[in-house]
Amino acid sequence: MKDLKKLISEMTLEEKAGICSGADFWHTKAVERLQIPDMMMSDGPHGLRKQDLEGDHLGVNDSIKAVCFPAGCAMASSFDRELLHRVGETLGKECQAENVGVILGPAVNIKRSPLCGRNFEYYSEDPYAASEIATAHIEGVQSQNVGTSIKHFCLNNQETRRMSISAEVDERTMHEIYLSAFEGAVKNAKPWTVMCSYNRINGVFGSENQETLTDILRKRWGYEGFVVSDWSAVNDRVPGLKAGLDLEMPSSFGENDALIVEAVKKGELDEAVVDQAVERILNIVYRAQEGRKENAVFDRDADHELAREIAGETLVLLKNEDHILPLSKEQKLAVIGKYAKKPRFQGGGSSHINCHKVTAFLDCLEEGMDYVYAQGYDDDRDEINEQMITEAVEAAKDAAVAVIFAGLPDNFESEGYDRKHMRMPDCQNELIRRVTEVQKNVIVILHNGSPVEMPWISEVKGVIEAYLGGQAVGGAEYDVLFGRINPSGKLSETFPLKLSDNPSYLNFPGGQDTVEYKEGIFVGYRYYDFKEMDVLFPFGYGLSYTDFAYSNLKLDKETMKDSDTLTVSVDVTNTGKMAGKEVVEVYVRDLESSAVRPVRELKEFAKVALEPGETKTVTFALSKRAFAYYEPKVHDFYVEPGDFLVEIGRSSRDIVLSEKVTVTGTYLLADHYDENSLIGDAMRDERVSDIVKALMENGFMDFGGSEGGSGSEAISKDMMAAMFEYTPLRSGLSFSNGRLKRADLQEVLKKMNERIKK
Amino acid sequence: MKDLKKLISEMTLEEKAGICSGADFWHTKAVERLQIPDMMMSDGPHGLRKQDLEGDHLGVNDSIKAVCFPAGCAMASSFDRELLHRVGETLGKECQAENVGVILGPAVNIKRSPLCGRNFEYYSEDPYAASEIATAHIEGVQSQNVGTSIKHFCLNNQETRRMSISAEVDERTMHEIYLSAFEGAVKNAKPWTVMCSYNRINGVFGSENQETLTDILRKRWGYEGFVVSDWSAVNDRVPGLKAGLDLEMPSSFGENDALIVEAVKKGELDEAVVDQAVERILNIVYRAQEGRKENAVFDRDADHELAREIAGETLVLLKNEDHILPLSKEQKLAVIGKYAKKPRFQGGGSSHINCHKVTAFLDCLEEGMDYVYAQGYDDDRDEINEQMITEAVEAAKDAAVAVIFAGLPDNFESEGYDRKHMRMPDCQNELIRRVTEVQKNVIVILHNGSPVEMPWISEVKGVIEAYLGGQAVGGAEYDVLFGRINPSGKLSETFPLKLSDNPSYLNFPGGQDTVEYKEGIFVGYRYYDFKEMDVLFPFGYGLSYTDFAYSNLKLDKETMKDSDTLTVSVDVTNTGKMAGKEVVEVYVRDLESSAVRPVRELKEFAKVALEPGETKTVTFALSKRAFAYYEPKVHDFYVEPGDFLVEIGRSSRDIVLSEKVTVTGTYLLADHYDENSLIGDAMRDERVSDIVKALMENGFMDFGGSEGGSGSEAISKDMMAAMFEYTPLRSGLSFSNGRLKRADLQEVLKKMNERIKK
Repeated sequence: MKDLKKLISEMTLEEKAGICSGADFWHTKAVERLQIPDMMMSDGPHGLRKQDLEGDHLGVNDSIKAVCFPAGCAMASSFDRELLHRVGETLGKECQAENVGVILGPAVNIKRSPLCGRNFEYYSEDPYAASEIATAHIEGVQSQNVGTSIKHFCLNNQETRRMSISAEVDERTMHEIYLSAFEGAVKNAKPWTVMCSYNRINGVFGSENQETLTDILRKRWGYEGFVVSDWSAVNDRVPGLKAGLDLEMPSSFGENDALIVEAVKKGELDEAVVDQAVERILNIVYRAQEGRKENAVFDRDADHELAREIAGETLVLLKNEDHILPLSKEQKLAVIGKYAKKPRFQGGGSSHINCHKVTAFLDCLEEGMDYVYAQGYDDDRDEINEQMITEAVEAAKDAAVAVIFAGLPDNFESEGYDRKHMRMPDCQNELIRRVTEVQKNVIVILHNGSPVEMPWISEVKGVIEAYLGGQAVGGAEYDVLFGRINPSGKLSETFPLKLSDNPSYLNFPGGQDTVEYKEGIFVGYRYYDFKEMDVLFPFGYGLSYTDFAYSNLKLDKETMKDSDTLTVSVDVTNTGKMAGKEVVEVYVRDLESSAVRPVRELKEFAKVALEPGETKTVTFALSKRAFAYYEPKVHDFYVEPGDFLVEIGRSSRDIVLSEKVTVTGTYLLADHYDENSLIGDAMRDERVSDIVKALMENGFMDFGGSEGGSGSEAISKDMMAAMFEYTPLRSGLSFSNGRLKRADLQEVLKKMNERIKK
Repeated sequence: MKDLKKLISEMTLEEKAGICSGADFWHTKAVERLQIPDMMMSDGPHGLRKQDLEGDHLGVNDSIKAVCFPAGCAMASSFDRELLHRVGETLGKECQAENVGVILGPAVNIKRSPLCGRNFEYYSEDPYAASEIATAHIEGVQSQNVGTSIKHFCLNNQETRRMSISAEVDERTMHEIYLSAFEGAVKNAKPWTVMCSYNRINGVFGSENQETLTDILRKRWGYEGFVVSDWSAVNDRVPGLKAGLDLEMPSSFGENDALIVEAVKKGELDEAVVDQAVERILNIVYRAQEGRKENAVFDRDADHELAREIAGETLVLLKNEDHILPLSKEQKLAVIGKYAKKPRFQGGGSSHINCHKVTAFLDCLEEGMDYVYAQGYDDDRDEINEQMITEAVEAAKDAAVAVIFAGLPDNFESEGYDRKHMRMPDCQNELIRRVTEVQKNVIVILHNGSPVEMPWISEVKGVIEAYLGGQAVGGAEYDVLFGRINPSGKLSETFPLKLSDNPSYLNFPGGQDTVEYKEGIFVGYRYYDFKEMDVLFPFGYGLSYTDFAYSNLKLDKETMKDSDTLTVSVDVTNTGKMAGKEVVEVYVRDLESSAVRPVRELKEFAKVALEPGETKTVTFALSKRAFAYYEPKVHDFYVEPGDFLVEIGRSSRDIVLSEKVTVTGTYLLADHYDENSLIGDAMRDERVSDIVKALMENGFMDFGGSEGGSGSEAISKDMMAAMFEYTPLRSGLSFSNGRLKRADLQEVLKKMNERIKK
């Protein structure tokens, strides 16, 4: 390993400042004098977008031909860590073949609103799910000595005004929801780089945010890689460097390098800060260089086949009335919809892959199969095309089953802007409606990066959510429709019934300067479950062609300390006739809490493959964090002692087994009493209750002699109790008929506070 | 009129400090030396709770026998300003007879949650409705030279921890919702006193809040009376006095008077501040003295009859399937439920009246009528009493109609604590369910201060919401049930389907120290309408025994300046066969707004009496405030130019007529551009768009020569457009391939900002 400290000591200030920004759009700077190599970064994360730089300085022109795997929305639906690891490995190998040192991503921002244009790249509305999926992806890529860049750190949950808006979020929500999605992956998978977000976080740009980049990321989580700016996220370079932003991308063409040099010379910036950033950057540059595999090969055809296999594991079966699926190849099919022929399988923007090959569903149909195809709609503009609909209706009429390939067109969702509504194009909804008028056996396959409303849901028999399934999605659709693959995906996000149901609806996408996360921790199912709202499909939901039964839920302890690990096991049996895979979801529910908490939260999951009749025991370990919430009073995650339920669910709305565990630990007690402390609180605090009781007995609010009662019908016993409960100690001064004096009260408070110190 | 300045100049500092707190629980201090009289205050507001002081120093013992009118919840349902005025007048006369100078109330706090224990005293979830109802009440009382004390100022929307909790609310919400409820009444009716609230407001106690007590109340609204503390709301007296709290109640037994004297002597408090408070207090004391009517009489029997008449105008007919109501006296009735015999008609706490008489429904039934009574439930504890239910079921079986008198028991809602849920007692719900099993004609009359869930709603034919209708409620119920009075109340609050539907549900009643009003302006129907949620009964809803038709909605202008007044007229016709009264509701809807605004807001209402076949034209005047929202950027109410709909509704969910008006005014434009200003914003600003356009044409983000296009399939035109829209000017530094330098950008910004100044 290179002696970086020595190397840095040999560098000029100008050379060091130079290292802190890119050489161009994609490379770190080399220093020939010292044989310091450059390193290339390329966009990811569901394929390699490596760009030829000629004639492009904005990173938007065509990239090399590559393989597009399913996007984040689809990958997360697999709930399959091993699968994510394989995709990561493959991407890592592709990077090695193309001499790319870091492939940007994964993107773990929480799906706060279904409207976020970039949701298709993100994993989940649940931070644990997002973090675990990201961990597997990162470990896969980095197993090939290629780096990742987990992004966008943090609070980048919309495209609207993304480069200027301030996400305003309270401390608990920030840690419990938005940071948690990064935290596990950073701690467990140690990504080589972290990419800061464009937006402001409570007023301070992500690119110059000391709290997120240093206090949380490095000091709290122990992060050791470098932080890179999202491309053009840098606002003010020198404060950014101080705050912990190591590398600016793309190049600032020398402007910001000069600012760094100037600041050091003026004594406004400690050169040690520059040295540290340079060390972090070069540490990764050399790690990439040392890990180079010169003979690596990017086998696009092999990776295409893998993309098909992977996609097959991500499709989510949402509805299967009368077991209409899987289809028989003997049935006469009406294949309807442009996406059967030209699927939508990826989103626009920095993750967009220049695919070397695309497989559509129609490409997979074998000779001799009895089917007819009708386009049904155009997807470049949302206009109802009567002729196309009529063709589709005619095709559907004569078929045994109509399969409609639908979804969101490219211009409905993309990086760069948010959706305005949650509807599919009118032309597609109308098409589906009209087809269901003539055909009872209708299946809809959806291609979209984020939930859509389904006004036709009760009229169709089958729905498959294919999300944006990558360039081989047509093959995966073929596999699932005809039962070559038993679908096993589950939703990593709730599908609400309508847009206005969404928790962020009142505050998305915010105003000109700020977006306020007023729903707080109640994101996704945390909101729908707590608010007892009907949803279209709940978080964690997904069907299979077979059936699974759960039994024998066991916890290894009835009582545990908050520092203990609880072992949970449950038996899962395939009770149907087809082999299949089940995602086992473990939720934790706090039965009573002084803080407001969600009804239940996902704390573990596993995917298990089962032959018909087979039973497997799945085991999980739950530790402190599974029971904790973020308590602002202690600025940390905290477990309030009490009873919790460990629940096994088919979704957040379908809990099949649960067991209770009592967790012991430390109660948060008052650390100070003053005149405004409430009698009720003090009476419940065993350390001081006797003092307060004595005070009461000495004539402070004695209600004219009757023992805690009142002569009036106006004041019920309940009201009297509540009056004590919520009355501050100082009220004795006005309610004791002059018996309590301020000096006496001060004495009492002094005594109470002395007791607490002990 | 007394020369107060002269009088005050003759007072000692100690005497003046003394005036700033009460002599005892109910009186201001007299100063014998200077013949300064005292003045008594008594609790209100729906009756006179004048207390005999002996043996009581907490204000909780029995008060004199008086008359209990309907509580605030019921009074507001009348939507009848004239009615409120009459009640106010009557209370004023009672006060004159009892030598009470100020009757405390009305209470206009917004009904943020149905759980607030004190909702029964409050008027509405809508600030305009609350403010107008309060105005009429205050004007009525004060027409008798008796003062009022509008309360609790402000943000006191729950009982939980009411004396210590801080209501955390953003500026817009505070002004647009919570302060607006006070604002109109303070400005129009000029209450003699304003009572500050117990709670903190954004961290600062209501009793020492300079912003609310002085900056808003006096400077912005021009308030000239005195501010009195809620009883024992004083935390720190001297800062309170400085902030604008004139009178502390009850007595501090000299302790705080001494603090005031000490502060003046130490130079920490300007004596002029004391003088001002004393002047404000004595101004009212002398006004009360000068307005004394020594020969006034409190005719309790006459006022009881008035209470019956008033109550009849407040009942809200919620359901009347098959026109089951009004009942015929010839039908055999099953009268079920304890509240038929012993009605619940008022709430617990400071507003509780020691009634000289109570009329129950059963008291009103005439001899010879064919009815049977069954108690059905006990209301002192929520236990299902099988025997009582069986009796009730037997009674219902043989009757033509069963009328069930139900509601919330005293201990379910009261001042002092909040409800824990929105359900009626299980024993009552079970009773209703069982009765509906044997009887198809069931009518439920509800006695409660705040909405309840109605799981039995589809099984009953009639529902009357009597709220807490005062001591003569039984008579009013008789009048309405048998058609002597045609019900005309409408709901001044939404009845949600279930508690979790409520907008404050995620944040009520908050934590130990704070309650965050995260739903913002979306309180009540503003939330349910915006979120497109089903409700049990919407805001403004209420049925009649006759029918009303609306026609001929006219606006006197198609276009208006925001400083103009718009005259709105609409014809209302009684198309049925019974005389009746209709509440005409005028809503305003902003058709497009850069701020997030509710779907519609109530901006005017009127109650109109119509004989069968009669038509009346109702005219309203809408001025600036009807179209405005509170814009934090200008710290004031602001009308954004554009199109608005003026809507006439039977409720917020049933708009029957609407007309458009275009309001012109001033757009809020940027007052500054900097590096982080977005290209899109600058391009839309005609003052600077040419400068930005020139910048773009000079090679800032020219995408390699193609005209705003991209060579890549990754970047759609929409994304490209969005990239411009949301890109800050500074991004030119990294996206122009080095063509744009920081110095150039600074020049450009200078030019832009110079343009704006012009």
